Amino acid sequence: MAKKSVELSGVVVARTEICSIDPDQGILRYRGYDIADLAENATYEEVAYLLLEGELPSSDQLEAFREELAARELPPAVVAIVDGRAREASPMETLRTAVSALSFDDPDEGATDRESERRKAASLIAQLPTIVARYHRRRLGRGAVAPDPSLSYAENFLTMLRGEAPTAEEVRAFDVAMILHAEHEMNASTFTARVVAGTHADMHSAVVAAICALKGPIHGGANLAAMEMFEEFGSADAVGDAIRGRLEAKKTLHGLGHPLYRALDPRAPILQALAQQLANENGNEPKWYAIAEAVQREAHEQKGLWANVDLYGGVVYRYLGIPNDMFPALFACSRVVGWAAHVLEQHADNRIIRPSAEYVGPEPRAFPVRAGS
Amino acid sequence: MAKKSVELSGVVVARTEICSIDPDQGILRYRGYDIADLAENATYEEVAYLLLEGELPSSDQLEAFREELAARELPPAVVAIVDGRAREASPMETLRTAVSALSFDDPDEGATDRESERRKAASLIAQLPTIVARYHRRRLGRGAVAPDPSLSYAENFLTMLRGEAPTAEEVRAFDVAMILHAEHEMNASTFTARVVAGTHADMHSAVVAAICALKGPIHGGANLAAMEMFEEFGSADAVGDAIRGRLEAKKTLHGLGHPLYRALDPRAPILQALAQQLANENGNEPKWYAIAEAVQREAHEQKGLWANVDLYGGVVYRYLGIPNDMFPALFACSRVVGWAAHVLEQHADNRIIRPSAEYVGPEPRAFPVRAGS
Repeated sequence: MAKKSVELSGVVVARTEICSIDPDQGILRYRGYDIADLAENATYEEVAYLLLEGELPSSDQLEAFREELAARELPPAVVAIVDGRAREASPMETLRTAVSALSFDDPDEGATDRESERRKAASLIAQLPTIVARYHRRRLGRGAVAPDPSLSYAENFLTMLRGEAPTAEEVRAFDVAMILHAEHEMNASTFTARVVAGTHADMHSAVVAAICALKGPIHGGANLAAMEMFEEFGSADAVGDAIRGRLEAKKTLHGLGHPLYRALDPRAPILQALAQQLANENGNEPKWYAIAEAVQREAHEQKGLWANVDLYGGVVYRYLGIPNDMFPALFACSRVVGWAAHVLEQHADNRIIRPSAEYVGPEPRAFPVRAGS
Repeated sequence: MAKKSVELSGVVVARTEICSIDPDQGILRYRGYDIADLAENATYEEVAYLLLEGELPSSDQLEAFREELAARELPPAVVAIVDGRAREASPMETLRTAVSALSFDDPDEGATDRESERRKAASLIAQLPTIVARYHRRRLGRGAVAPDPSLSYAENFLTMLRGEAPTAEEVRAFDVAMILHAEHEMNASTFTARVVAGTHADMHSAVVAAICALKGPIHGGANLAAMEMFEEFGSADAVGDAIRGRLEAKKTLHGLGHPLYRALDPRAPILQALAQQLANENGNEPKWYAIAEAVQREAHEQKGLWANVDLYGGVVYRYLGIPNDMFPALFACSRVVGWAAHVLEQHADNRIIRPSAEYVGPEPRAFPVRAGS
């Protein structure tokens, strides 16, 4: 949508080796690897290792990391929080609270040495999906599906969410969606994690704070908003007029435009291809893909707007049977890798992040004399 | 101590009407009122109202606000979190988790209109002390003291912490300490709250994230570190040599120096006077005040350092019978007012805060061909 003014936009707040964005060519790279290359060739586990450690794992390193990521069970205190409120609480307040409670059972709560933080990072990556899936099952009044350490990250996560084994195509689509959302430079939640880490707070605190930022609808809620917009449009035929109407009314067009990319967000065509594949699978409604595609075409023709990561992301999740209001929580499960990588980087050479404000308030004034005093 | 390099130091990230700092003259003002004037004449309730609303309350407004702040009871879900872990968990992880869980019972969770956020702010100011005091009592194996809505903020808080009525002098000292910690411009936790609010996340999320930042020892842990340093020194006579030793070893001197003030932090002499008053009260050990005073004198003589808010803050709390590791949680109870005021201000004219990073990582590279593929 029309570019919003962004505070600190373009102001460099950190040096990073994790991620780079070429806004003109529309290239996103994790540690030097093109996101399209990773989406085609890597698994989420490999990408998570790459982001945390800086290099792709050897087969032995990958095996050991998979074992770390298979420790997916939740401690009883966290289960109690999720089960206690699942019917009434929102996904993101539950995730925020449950992740905060994970530190209760951390063997060295508060420790910020690299080895501890690297261990905490793997734990968080492993446990967040269990929280999200358990919450989702419990609010439907269904039994939670225990995590299966023999499954890949993506297959286990989808199985826990849905209570039945996904197809290989579904697993791959979900895995790629997780890869594409894992990291995106100095976005608001990642910046939050770095500001918190800058006070030398611990990994759990930084990740909880990042979840707080992602809870904001204009950060973590964009693919949810795009899907709701598609539901409002109802059919691909209605899209042209609907877009015109929204543009005239100066209403936001979700899933379009980006403060950084000047052309196509490189994640959009990858998700588009996955959405297109899934559109004709058993029981999936082709219209959601058709609507998203029409939105992309009409928004470009009518206003020169380009698709971003959120245009097809929600369609992929819809085809995987995941309800709209879970999208931000899935985003958190993926992005926790990027947050953790930035916390490790921040703590490797820590400096507190403490900006200034321009005071525009009242002039100096004296406390009034009290009546009777 | 030597000034640490601070990222974003001096970079203006927001315009604010809440607080101003004159670093040369050493003046801190809330909404135009000198902190010394407020410490002498106002109560914490009045200061909280001033920070949130922009003006001091009329007597009717103050009465209504006091009623809001008297709703101090915790919902059962929060009680369960505090009681369940009080013996093992740290104060700040408990506070972080319990405050996050407060939103479960918020009547319009996630709402960000001003009226809702103003109500949530009062609730948080009212309920944080109950969490902190309950945690403290339970970990000592003692019964929690129910909040008393007829008492002032400070008297109720001290009573809940200690299980017995404080003296009028103790209440006033605690009230002033709360006033002095309530707000300090764009510090790391307040900035965190604003970055989170910038995504249009809600008041609870912004406050939870701010607690995460305050948990960092170099932000919320400074008066605790100062008190531990005094314990290490042991007596006022030992201070001169101990300071010399620390300076030679380039070890941090806690409670001294400030990234903003170029002379005395204006909060220091106010806390010093309170500490001095309390030093000779029933059962209090005069040596803590004497050590702090010697540290102030020696650090200035030996290195030209000035006292900051943390030098006497811990001594005041020690004299009020509060253990060191609770200091950061007390800081949060006070500072929640400033955080909330900044969230209200951010949301009055919201823009997402999304800076940039300078990429210094690997050059573009291709995903390796897999062995056997």
